[in-house]
Amino acid sequence: MTTSPDVRPAPRPLTEPVGTVVPSQVPTHWYNLAADLPEPPPPALHPGTREPLGPQDLAPLFPMALIAQEVSTERYVEIPQTIREIYALWRPSPLVRALRLERALGTPAKIYYKYEGVSPAGSHKPNTAVAQAYYNAVEGTTKLTTETGAGQWGASLSFACSLLGLQCEVWQVRASYDAKPYRRMQMETYGGVCHPSPSDLTEAGRAMLAADPDTTGSLGMAISEAVEVAAQDPNAHYALGSVLNHVLLHQSVIGIEALDQLDAIGETADVVFGCAGGGSNLGGLSFPFIGRNLRDGTTTRVVACEPAACPSLTQGEYRYDFGDVAGLTPLLKMHTLGKDFVPPPIHAGGLRYHGMAPMVSHAYELGLLEAIAVEQEVAFAAGVEFARAEGIIPAPESTHAVAGAIAHARAATTDETIVIGLSGNGVLDLPAYHDFL
Amino acid sequence: MTTSPDVRPAPRPLTEPVGTVVPSQVPTHWYNLAADLPEPPPPALHPGTREPLGPQDLAPLFPMALIAQEVSTERYVEIPQTIREIYALWRPSPLVRALRLERALGTPAKIYYKYEGVSPAGSHKPNTAVAQAYYNAVEGTTKLTTETGAGQWGASLSFACSLLGLQCEVWQVRASYDAKPYRRMQMETYGGVCHPSPSDLTEAGRAMLAADPDTTGSLGMAISEAVEVAAQDPNAHYALGSVLNHVLLHQSVIGIEALDQLDAIGETADVVFGCAGGGSNLGGLSFPFIGRNLRDGTTTRVVACEPAACPSLTQGEYRYDFGDVAGLTPLLKMHTLGKDFVPPPIHAGGLRYHGMAPMVSHAYELGLLEAIAVEQEVAFAAGVEFARAEGIIPAPESTHAVAGAIAHARAATTDETIVIGLSGNGVLDLPAYHDFL
Repeated sequence: MTTSPDVRPAPRPLTEPVGTVVPSQVPTHWYNLAADLPEPPPPALHPGTREPLGPQDLAPLFPMALIAQEVSTERYVEIPQTIREIYALWRPSPLVRALRLERALGTPAKIYYKYEGVSPAGSHKPNTAVAQAYYNAVEGTTKLTTETGAGQWGASLSFACSLLGLQCEVWQVRASYDAKPYRRMQMETYGGVCHPSPSDLTEAGRAMLAADPDTTGSLGMAISEAVEVAAQDPNAHYALGSVLNHVLLHQSVIGIEALDQLDAIGETADVVFGCAGGGSNLGGLSFPFIGRNLRDGTTTRVVACEPAACPSLTQGEYRYDFGDVAGLTPLLKMHTLGKDFVPPPIHAGGLRYHGMAPMVSHAYELGLLEAIAVEQEVAFAAGVEFARAEGIIPAPESTHAVAGAIAHARAATTDETIVIGLSGNGVLDLPAYHDFL
Repeated sequence: MTTSPDVRPAPRPLTEPVGTVVPSQVPTHWYNLAADLPEPPPPALHPGTREPLGPQDLAPLFPMALIAQEVSTERYVEIPQTIREIYALWRPSPLVRALRLERALGTPAKIYYKYEGVSPAGSHKPNTAVAQAYYNAVEGTTKLTTETGAGQWGASLSFACSLLGLQCEVWQVRASYDAKPYRRMQMETYGGVCHPSPSDLTEAGRAMLAADPDTTGSLGMAISEAVEVAAQDPNAHYALGSVLNHVLLHQSVIGIEALDQLDAIGETADVVFGCAGGGSNLGGLSFPFIGRNLRDGTTTRVVACEPAACPSLTQGEYRYDFGDVAGLTPLLKMHTLGKDFVPPPIHAGGLRYHGMAPMVSHAYELGLLEAIAVEQEVAFAAGVEFARAEGIIPAPESTHAVAGAIAHARAATTDETIVIGLSGNGVLDLPAYHDFL
């Protein structure tokens, strides 16, 4: 498990000046925590046999490169040049010292935030969308299907497919499709096609409409529709925006950059706060820090901040569970509130998932990270405080990490270094702020 | 007029690691084209006496530092440290090689875009909003008033006031206030106060409501309300988002950075395309290029891209005119369609102004820049083409520059270097794209 090199290979400069004029600063490799864990995470199981999944079980849905990444134990996975060129549109994302927030809080602590909202889709999601679209394009896939709730993931995948020449077909939960049209317009501007789910385009959708013609849909149903279409079309694959190992691998650029940026100014993070829903932002931000703790004996604390309304890490059981409501996906060992758990409607739609990524769950079990649950009101109050001090309106998801960090900073008595993972901006979530105010 | 140094002073590194971790890359000085013009621009005139304005005429509305900048002929004006610290939140903004767009167009030309949409408010407007709020705060102002149409300027000034501890009161044209609530919510999240205009809070507003209780308002009326409140409150000043010399001065960071970024990769711009409404984005982007042409004999062309629906440069007269409908502002020598010209409703609300900045108008008269008019349909088609190739959805204003550049690139027969000024993103303008598609 430790046959991969234990130092990260030196960056290889891009061959021409693409992207921002400093493209050589884009990371050259993703980081894989599996290489540094003291014990491997439990495998995914086949939903029928309950035996560990083989690559062929996933082949109808994913390209082989992603399946290989899903089970890889290599520490560093090289980022293909084409992906780096697209990353260079917004990467490295800024690491910013929140001096005005520090002053507003009267804290002796130093607060930094790593800001993913500069991506064209406004969140961290394109980090994996671009990678998934790339590997699919290379293996000849011509169309990707996916589900989306509020629409961040659907917009990010439409963006990635547009740049890499793939069609993108998205099933969006009807309640959001009707109530939040901006993200759908974003998908369409990128050339994506967005259907309300349930739709009459799939067997699963027709069955649900027959049972309840007035249903507003659910994420679980939208998954079923997207998976059904991908499985039946030999030229199409399916893409998932969180939870799986390869998704967290792609998101590791966030933490890799943050480590490098802190190193460059002689800082070491004492504690990192990230918001946690499915786990892709938290894992991407924190795993490079956890890996360094494991390899080098550093002691950076990692705190997962989840919504009190959907507290899978702090309240869920650690057991095998399905990823979807219908029980069609592989079984994943994770902290779960149960596949039938229906979280109450909260504004942080990206955090409304019953389970937590297996790798995050495993790290939590091993004591490598901590978790807290944050009430929605507390999260929004922190978001407003952050916006008025720093000028960036955080995504509702990100406000959970901000709230965790602000509470910590208020209690701080030393000049310790705090890092906030700001997973996205809240520009398309302004009505949620309006409701709060 | 050329007593100021003719080389830009060396950057002075920030004293601590604020902002992104490379804050020393934030420009240290703004650039003032007035220092390099072969003849000075005509002065602003008092609306009553028609004599050149003195500083005291402007004192009720602006702080002395901005009044001094308005008539300065110094080539370089140092950017105060506090402003640089805030600029560092998003500056230097990216200069990106549009390789995928080049391939899509099949052009031998090299296309770069300078992207201002990474600012917290999503456009170039904060470059001057921060500066105006700063100088007001230093001179003891406690509140800024302004008008806004679609809301970009009101949101940018609310952002700046929030960071610098000022109150912000905005009068928004009622039609936009009712139809486009997101920008208003953005202002409120930053702590700004936004009134629909006409309001019953001012004499001017009450008079207009008495005359027409169902009016949907106009920018000219909103200006009158904001100016009235500022003039009557000794602690309040007024802020304008375009047109004036000091606004264009602050926006010069765009072009200064673009020149430096091109230099760093050994490129020289052959032609620069910028969108033009009031002229602040165009001037900020292009004046550093024009100044270099004048000083060093370089031959970078500058093309102003204005909407065919509001073609002040290509169709307007060059004469003294008022900035507002009521005729209360100073008289400015500018290309104008007449203060009573009512542009048809177009999606690029930021370009719907009857006049063009005096400095841009003067430079146009001197043959230092060119201008074209772009039809709205052509602009949106270019915006969609850009979004699908490059991943960034341009603001409707910016699509005019994109359209100019795309037409030029399609006709190009050499590897000339094109720079597009992308003044903002279109995330809050997605319904306009939806209408177009």
